[in-house]
Amino acid sequence: MNDARLRRDVPPEPLFFGEGEGTMLFFENDYGEGAHPKILEKLWETNREKLPGYGADRYTASAREKIRAAVGAPEADVFFLAGGTQINRTVIAAMLAPWEGVVAADTGHISVHEAGAVERTGHKVLTLPGRGGKLDAGGLEDFVRRFAADENREHMVFPGMVYLSQPTEYGTTYTAGELTALAGICRAAGMRLYLDGARLGYALAAEPSLTLADYARLCDAFSIGGTKVGCLCGEAAVFPSGAPPHFLNTVKREGALAAKGRLAGIQFDVLFTDGLYGEIGRDAVRQADRVRAALDRLGYRQLVRTNANQIFPVLTREEYERLSRRVSLAFWERLDGGDVAVRAATSWATEEADVDALIALLEEEKRR
Amino acid sequence: MNDARLRRDVPPEPLFFGEGEGTMLFFENDYGEGAHPKILEKLWETNREKLPGYGADRYTASAREKIRAAVGAPEADVFFLAGGTQINRTVIAAMLAPWEGVVAADTGHISVHEAGAVERTGHKVLTLPGRGGKLDAGGLEDFVRRFAADENREHMVFPGMVYLSQPTEYGTTYTAGELTALAGICRAAGMRLYLDGARLGYALAAEPSLTLADYARLCDAFSIGGTKVGCLCGEAAVFPSGAPPHFLNTVKREGALAAKGRLAGIQFDVLFTDGLYGEIGRDAVRQADRVRAALDRLGYRQLVRTNANQIFPVLTREEYERLSRRVSLAFWERLDGGDVAVRAATSWATEEADVDALIALLEEEKRR
Amino acid sequence: MNDARLRRDVPPEPLFFGEGEGTMLFFENDYGEGAHPKILEKLWETNREKLPGYGADRYTASAREKIRAAVGAPEADVFFLAGGTQINRTVIAAMLAPWEGVVAADTGHISVHEAGAVERTGHKVLTLPGRGGKLDAGGLEDFVRRFAADENREHMVFPGMVYLSQPTEYGTTYTAGELTALAGICRAAGMRLYLDGARLGYALAAEPSLTLADYARLCDAFSIGGTKVGCLCGEAAVFPSGAPPHFLNTVKREGALAAKGRLAGIQFDVLFTDGLYGEIGRDAVRQADRVRAALDRLGYRQLVRTNANQIFPVLTREEYERLSRRVSLAFWERLDGGDVAVRAATSWATEEADVDALIALLEEEKRR
Amino acid sequence: MNDARLRRDVPPEPLFFGEGEGTMLFFENDYGEGAHPKILEKLWETNREKLPGYGADRYTASAREKIRAAVGAPEADVFFLAGGTQINRTVIAAMLAPWEGVVAADTGHISVHEAGAVERTGHKVLTLPGRGGKLDAGGLEDFVRRFAADENREHMVFPGMVYLSQPTEYGTTYTAGELTALAGICRAAGMRLYLDGARLGYALAAEPSLTLADYARLCDAFSIGGTKVGCLCGEAAVFPSGAPPHFLNTVKREGALAAKGRLAGIQFDVLFTDGLYGEIGRDAVRQADRVRAALDRLGYRQLVRTNANQIFPVLTREEYERLSRRVSLAFWERLDGGDVAVRAATSWATEEADVDALIALLEEEKRR
Repeated sequence: MNDARLRRDVPPEPLFFGEGEGTMLFFENDYGEGAHPKILEKLWETNREKLPGYGADRYTASAREKIRAAVGAPEADVFFLAGGTQINRTVIAAMLAPWEGVVAADTGHISVHEAGAVERTGHKVLTLPGRGGKLDAGGLEDFVRRFAADENREHMVFPGMVYLSQPTEYGTTYTAGELTALAGICRAAGMRLYLDGARLGYALAAEPSLTLADYARLCDAFSIGGTKVGCLCGEAAVFPSGAPPHFLNTVKREGALAAKGRLAGIQFDVLFTDGLYGEIGRDAVRQADRVRAALDRLGYRQLVRTNANQIFPVLTREEYERLSRRVSLAFWERLDGGDVAVRAATSWATEEADVDALIALLEEEKRR
Repeated sequence: MNDARLRRDVPPEPLFFGEGEGTMLFFENDYGEGAHPKILEKLWETNREKLPGYGADRYTASAREKIRAAVGAPEADVFFLAGGTQINRTVIAAMLAPWEGVVAADTGHISVHEAGAVERTGHKVLTLPGRGGKLDAGGLEDFVRRFAADENREHMVFPGMVYLSQPTEYGTTYTAGELTALAGICRAAGMRLYLDGARLGYALAAEPSLTLADYARLCDAFSIGGTKVGCLCGEAAVFPSGAPPHFLNTVKREGALAAKGRLAGIQFDVLFTDGLYGEIGRDAVRQADRVRAALDRLGYRQLVRTNANQIFPVLTREEYERLSRRVSLAFWERLDGGDVAVRAATSWATEEADVDALIALLEEEKRR
Repeated sequence: MNDARLRRDVPPEPLFFGEGEGTMLFFENDYGEGAHPKILEKLWETNREKLPGYGADRYTASAREKIRAAVGAPEADVFFLAGGTQINRTVIAAMLAPWEGVVAADTGHISVHEAGAVERTGHKVLTLPGRGGKLDAGGLEDFVRRFAADENREHMVFPGMVYLSQPTEYGTTYTAGELTALAGICRAAGMRLYLDGARLGYALAAEPSLTLADYARLCDAFSIGGTKVGCLCGEAAVFPSGAPPHFLNTVKREGALAAKGRLAGIQFDVLFTDGLYGEIGRDAVRQADRVRAALDRLGYRQLVRTNANQIFPVLTREEYERLSRRVSLAFWERLDGGDVAVRAATSWATEEADVDALIALLEEEKRR
Repeated sequence: MNDARLRRDVPPEPLFFGEGEGTMLFFENDYGEGAHPKILEKLWETNREKLPGYGADRYTASAREKIRAAVGAPEADVFFLAGGTQINRTVIAAMLAPWEGVVAADTGHISVHEAGAVERTGHKVLTLPGRGGKLDAGGLEDFVRRFAADENREHMVFPGMVYLSQPTEYGTTYTAGELTALAGICRAAGMRLYLDGARLGYALAAEPSLTLADYARLCDAFSIGGTKVGCLCGEAAVFPSGAPPHFLNTVKREGALAAKGRLAGIQFDVLFTDGLYGEIGRDAVRQADRVRAALDRLGYRQLVRTNANQIFPVLTREEYERLSRRVSLAFWERLDGGDVAVRAATSWATEEADVDALIALLEEEKRR
């Protein structure tokens, strides 16, 4: 692409958001504030403790143990990395053989919005059409059967893993039945199952039929997101029945090993103390439920029916223009006819009063 | 390697340190504590501000401007990444053409201790013998001349960049004269010069002949380390005359783009306010100078003569055993004859009293 | 995939073909015989000449000059590589910036049947739905426009190149109008255009509106296939306005530089002497036309209407079973209802009598 | 490198050789002629046979069986690839885990003259000082012991394989004792042993203590070079106890799978019929021995004492200038004092009379 405007990428300017800074009502995303106060407190409290680096400190050990207990897998390997794309590409590349690729919904984060990070590791993302962001068991089974029957398969990329995001990029969640079906197909076909839990805390509340222990039972690896669930940064990679060999070396080689491993260790230790991780998820989903109920009551359409912390209202152009001056929402897509789908997200930082104010604005629009 | 002991890498256990935790005197490294208090304070203060993600917030913009001013390069591109290996491999790969490799001292961090991260991006590290961790201008010039004269060069890896660390892994620093000579060779040969400043704050104090503006003038890219100079995490990549095209996309693809860009932005904004970065470096080097003076006075040998924040005393086996029970030091290497070289590091967190106590222990040893 | 049968890949057994060896009538593919006799003769004739290696010999120079003349681009850079996947991945990777991927039809060879070779170089294949194997200008334009308008594009893979195969994997060809439209979109958007001409000789005959000079005028790079057009092995990469810098080094690094460069040089020198390349294409397409006419006359359906050297008849299950005992055809796919699409290919080696015999068999089927 | 002269790489010009073409006496290399006549004959003879592609033909099967018999490993997997760099990078990458690199002598072909092909696959070449091109068992053992004892090893590249070339780039050969010692170290340390046999035919004659069966017994993989031992192109990869899984897919992905697999299959079938491979090696080494004897008799120095088909005479500047006008020799290096080391190579194509003529020239020089 040679459009001069496209070349402009330095320095980065606001990428997603019209106006994110300031005092405007904020529903643009779930990473707009710093950290849950309990996390900052613990960082203060431990700040002068002299701890070994590279994840060998006592807080990281404690966080690991608490996660093992929470997921019901005492033998699980747990690693802490800094970000979502980083954990996805590192775990995926480490679990694939050179001849394998990873199957994902065409709307999956790794398929679209990670700048080709998985391909950069040498592996193909094999996309299947998603429905509301979700991979369909029937479609996957059919794909696998056709691959196995293809006489040309040695000239093709082998499906070695299935990637799911929970909740998906469209705010939907897999049910226990759906995840069990997908996991069954994976096991039957010798594919690993990896679940991207960048927002897993919100899925735990939205889809109570699936507990952390269920994810550990059904997946070969999954991430527990911190960045969007109360941390400054940090994602936990959980391998219920063991990580790939020398995974620490892989993390180092991928540039994802923090000298001050304590930063992630302390944060996850707090998240998994006294049920904070679950509490954050429940609070945010409760607020999102209030928004959804208001949208329905007021007659707003939604692009996708969601149940976690993201909501996709459809607005008229006028509604969109007026609302965006008073509340920060993420533009999602322009629909045929001129309507605009936006994304509103709640988070650990969303207050009851924020939602009251948002609902008041939505009501005001409908009273015009 | 199939030694069972070597296979054990999961979960990570203390890698470098005998005993790092607890209340023992600590000189093991410069990343053993959390963050400089001013940084933590600012994180608290800004915690509830709603800011755009991915580095588009006002603190990141401010930090970028302050760094541009500090390095005297108003057009510089500045990016913030999380860690040292990450910034090294991302910057190096982005600045090399596919047919190029990076020249480094054989003791360089990228040559030895980054688990092959640069090679993972497809580029060779071309090593030359270092002296006290430093690359020698004469050796580099000779290497370049031989390469240019080699009729087989199209079958070889082209030297496209020179990598230096300042201070080096051996605690030494390049002087203004040395760096100027190396930069001249690079320019004459069309090679880029990249300087790994993971501990640059300490070099600024140790080698006052080189200012931040000098690094900006002589290097095509350099990093300003935060993790080892008072941050929880974070390194700044500075490109004095512009970053490679679409570097933000590269950072994303490499898994190094933080959703909460504010974390690095706020930290670096503090570091570059009221001269804090320089102050941290001066304090730590002053304490290191005190240790060096005591070692000389007491007749301890040093493996390498250093001037920054790392010191490499040589101890007898008995001294090593006794001292390691009371002060945490990094084992460096066992010398012929049984003596042990250790590394002691000061940091932003080293107190005057810590050094007093260390000197007292060193004196006690010599009184035996 | 863990099906034991799938694991069986060593040693390779016939991959595509039921029974390829022997005296059965052969229309399975266009690489079933050795080399055009004129090529073998020249290999004999020059066998004892002592020539420099790595493409520096006089035959390679001559072949390069003849190709430059044939494509009407006296400044073109021309390189000879051994195979199709090799030339595709080497040229594509060399012409893409790190943040770019290559756009291809979802049925493109690089999308499906090169085992992830392009991804192995770190680049994504961005697929668009093909029609009869062809990429559609409207679809491409729409894709490019949407990408340029996407505010998230720095988190996405930039389309840096368009890949076309001519003829396509489905035996169809782009017309002059179609190729001109696609090239125009590429130029407007700053994307390079690469045309995979593994079977280009057959396209020259099938689509006479496009000459070699047209390909050179419209494409940034294209390949002239030898393996399937009379050579033992070998493909020419043509860069009408110059190859990427140090492309020879890239070829070496990719393992695609032959010590005995003479092998490709001599073969292409023969192919481009006295119009042999064009003649081979015309003969094969003439035979394919005879088959197509017979199919139409006899009432056989075709999966795709083709005009080059590949034909895709649709057979009933019974026809397929009987015919496959007497003529070697490539199984293509099983259609709903039980019919079978097969591929028949003509080549430089197809004799008039072969086609007579095939037509006789087709007639016999319809007489039943 | 920005020297304009260095940028000139397109089109390739003679890289290694002053004057290679013509009727001058030729000892420049062992790939200056076409193919052994028996090979060309067989290519003619089989040219019109219709055979399946991708190595599924009967000649490839036969060649594979003959090689299995010759190496005494009936279960060996055997694959045919086109060139030396290609087979090295493909086999090495396929046998290394992501955290592993390959140990080689600093003069090894993969260390210096393959344009970074191994690094391009993501793996580091860990170099040790060679002696006369050979890796030393003592040095390797020491390296492995130090690595295993290094507490930082999870931050380092693990040595996963040892690469040897036989004969080496300096024309020397490992003895049975040396190879056994190196293989023992590899097995003890869990490293694979790969032997690059680009010129293996000549080693078989030069080092009769090592038979093909010995290589199969001692190595995890080795190549049997064809390009420099009578073929137009082609190298066999032999995995005595089995290839890595899906190696065919790897070969395809690396762009190294030939559609006309028959080309390599037929050539190797001929090479391994009636002992031709051994015969070629013996003839060439016998001629090289004659040259070595003459050099000694006439008082010429040699840069390295060799025993295979490469010889490295040291000439005065005047001798070099005069001789290079009458015999094509490869310039090797300029020594201190102005003398020139050259390389003379014999091959399957070297005639008794060629050597007579060379010896006459050498005598003439000494008579001056």
